[in-house]
Amino acid sequence: MSTPTDVGNRPSADSSGSYRRRGPQFTDRIVAEPSGAGPESEGRAPLRSVSHWPAEPGRYRLVASLACPWAHRSIIVRRLMGLEDAISLAIVDPLQDDRSWRFGLDENGVDPVLGYRFLEEAYLARDPEHGTDNGVSVPAIVEESSGLLVTNDYPNITIDLGIEWAKYQRPGAPTLYPEELRAEIDAVNEGVFHDVNNGVYKAGFATKQARYEEAYTALFARLDELDERLADRRYLVGDHITEADIRLFTTLARFDAIYHGHFKCNRQKLAEFENLWPYARDLFQTPGFGDTVDFDHIKRHYYQVHTSINPTQIVPLGPEPAAWLEPHRREELGGSPFGPDGTPPEPLAGPLRPLPPLDM
Amino acid sequence: MSTPTDVGNRPSADSSGSYRRRGPQFTDRIVAEPSGAGPESEGRAPLRSVSHWPAEPGRYRLVASLACPWAHRSIIVRRLMGLEDAISLAIVDPLQDDRSWRFGLDENGVDPVLGYRFLEEAYLARDPEHGTDNGVSVPAIVEESSGLLVTNDYPNITIDLGIEWAKYQRPGAPTLYPEELRAEIDAVNEGVFHDVNNGVYKAGFATKQARYEEAYTALFARLDELDERLADRRYLVGDHITEADIRLFTTLARFDAIYHGHFKCNRQKLAEFENLWPYARDLFQTPGFGDTVDFDHIKRHYYQVHTSINPTQIVPLGPEPAAWLEPHRREELGGSPFGPDGTPPEPLAGPLRPLPPLDM
Repeated sequence: MSTPTDVGNRPSADSSGSYRRRGPQFTDRIVAEPSGAGPESEGRAPLRSVSHWPAEPGRYRLVASLACPWAHRSIIVRRLMGLEDAISLAIVDPLQDDRSWRFGLDENGVDPVLGYRFLEEAYLARDPEHGTDNGVSVPAIVEESSGLLVTNDYPNITIDLGIEWAKYQRPGAPTLYPEELRAEIDAVNEGVFHDVNNGVYKAGFATKQARYEEAYTALFARLDELDERLADRRYLVGDHITEADIRLFTTLARFDAIYHGHFKCNRQKLAEFENLWPYARDLFQTPGFGDTVDFDHIKRHYYQVHTSINPTQIVPLGPEPAAWLEPHRREELGGSPFGPDGTPPEPLAGPLRPLPPLDM
Repeated sequence: MSTPTDVGNRPSADSSGSYRRRGPQFTDRIVAEPSGAGPESEGRAPLRSVSHWPAEPGRYRLVASLACPWAHRSIIVRRLMGLEDAISLAIVDPLQDDRSWRFGLDENGVDPVLGYRFLEEAYLARDPEHGTDNGVSVPAIVEESSGLLVTNDYPNITIDLGIEWAKYQRPGAPTLYPEELRAEIDAVNEGVFHDVNNGVYKAGFATKQARYEEAYTALFARLDELDERLADRRYLVGDHITEADIRLFTTLARFDAIYHGHFKCNRQKLAEFENLWPYARDLFQTPGFGDTVDFDHIKRHYYQVHTSINPTQIVPLGPEPAAWLEPHRREELGGSPFGPDGTPPEPLAGPLRPLPPLDM
């Protein structure tokens, strides 16, 4: 994948004032039937090429942040697929420090399974030369027994959870990347990635007015196109939820709370789009989506980590999240969230990882 | 007046994290029939007490910024009263520097009437010890012949333009502060000042989370109360536009463009209020109001001057101003903007002071 992923690390703009995202650097795959050799047999160079690891319950730990839109995708898919018992989940502190993502919410700041304080340790275990300066991103899948980073290749992490782990998925799990729709899903994802998922970052981290304006213009042109596309179809591609919806959703969920103000994407709020807003509410109200959105993690991360755009680190109180629960009437467009044989996942009892009160 | 006014200067929060506004320090009045002595006869101390100057066409220059909500009031009132020929107007650069407001839009950066580069010079002429560090605010009225600052007492500047200059006002000028409504206007203004006009600054310049949250909470409680008040009445007090409407309007005009994002007043946009939004549009579409709103001045000022809350100085492109021109249907509530004998001022030909293109 040429798509980049140093999400959550401190922003850096180049001399042209543009924000550039680094690509994922560990692109191993976890698959149903591995054909390649394991990483143990490889030297330094091959470590960066694609190797295959076996899908095996109890072997891996998904390290994610509830704040990060790229990691959020993997939390949604793990839940939609019913892979909670197969793959454990570590939720990192929304506040990164100089060593990037850390297990600050755990007792003594140590992940109870991996024994790490910093996600960086899994990266260094895999590649002793790969520390924070090289980009430490979530989602990351780590082998529990060895503590080795397996992959931080977020676009393939969700694809593989959907396909390669079929044997361990719950009954009624949806098909998120159906073969006959892959070309269309890929095409939608491509535009959404550049202009929306990454587009908001390009706007927010621009240090030159012209670069900001380019990103803003492309973002809203794409959102207008998506709004139009969603006028007469419930989901982006086909009649059911797919990867395309998940990838758009995690950005839309953060739009009014973060990107509109903090990243200056303020032509209008998501709540002012005719179709995108009911579409986003429809997904939010679907088990697996809204119940994995944690505005507390999200707001503290963006507003307190990005001191280059919010030096006071004050976390805004708004907007009111209640609007997400208003009726959307999107079912009138036909389609069904999980397909003809699909069922929703069980409801979550509460927040995945509540935070202590904000320091006042 | 105990109300403070170091608007537009760099924000400063005290050790409790609260923003404190300085009161106006030059509170002379310009009146129809002066009773006190002129400033020439006064010593150092009396300079700070109230003296009376005569209302006299051609004698004074109003120095204002199109960016600043406190100065904007005086521009609206001067126009509603038809005092353009009686009192000249200088529009300062929206970007302040270390010496505060300056005449950066004029040829060679010098005001053609006063001969000043910086508004501070008028303050220093009046009081040699009063430089930028002591607060140099707009609106300021300066005597043209002497270059002396007469007053920066913005609450009384608009009151006096409305009352004391009666002899020079246009036919059909409204009564903005009618005697029988003064108590009610004052009461409304008091809440609007603390929670709304100044409340947005308290939220935006807070350096402690708790101080921000207090200001945010008081702001939206007051806006909710005003929204309710405006459900069945076209204007805040009585059946016509008064001082109360003008004072609320200049904050509302900046709400979605500035305070919502830049000052984190983001429970909701003005455009999401049921009555306040049509009310604000009604005023915007009234001659004297919308034609004195310049979003270019406004956005550049806030986003480029307040580097402590927007270090990149990127100026957001949004929101779209076209929504201000949508129908408001407020005339159905009865009342009339300028009273039974009042008429609107003549339309403006164009922007008061267009800015050169933004540096990209």
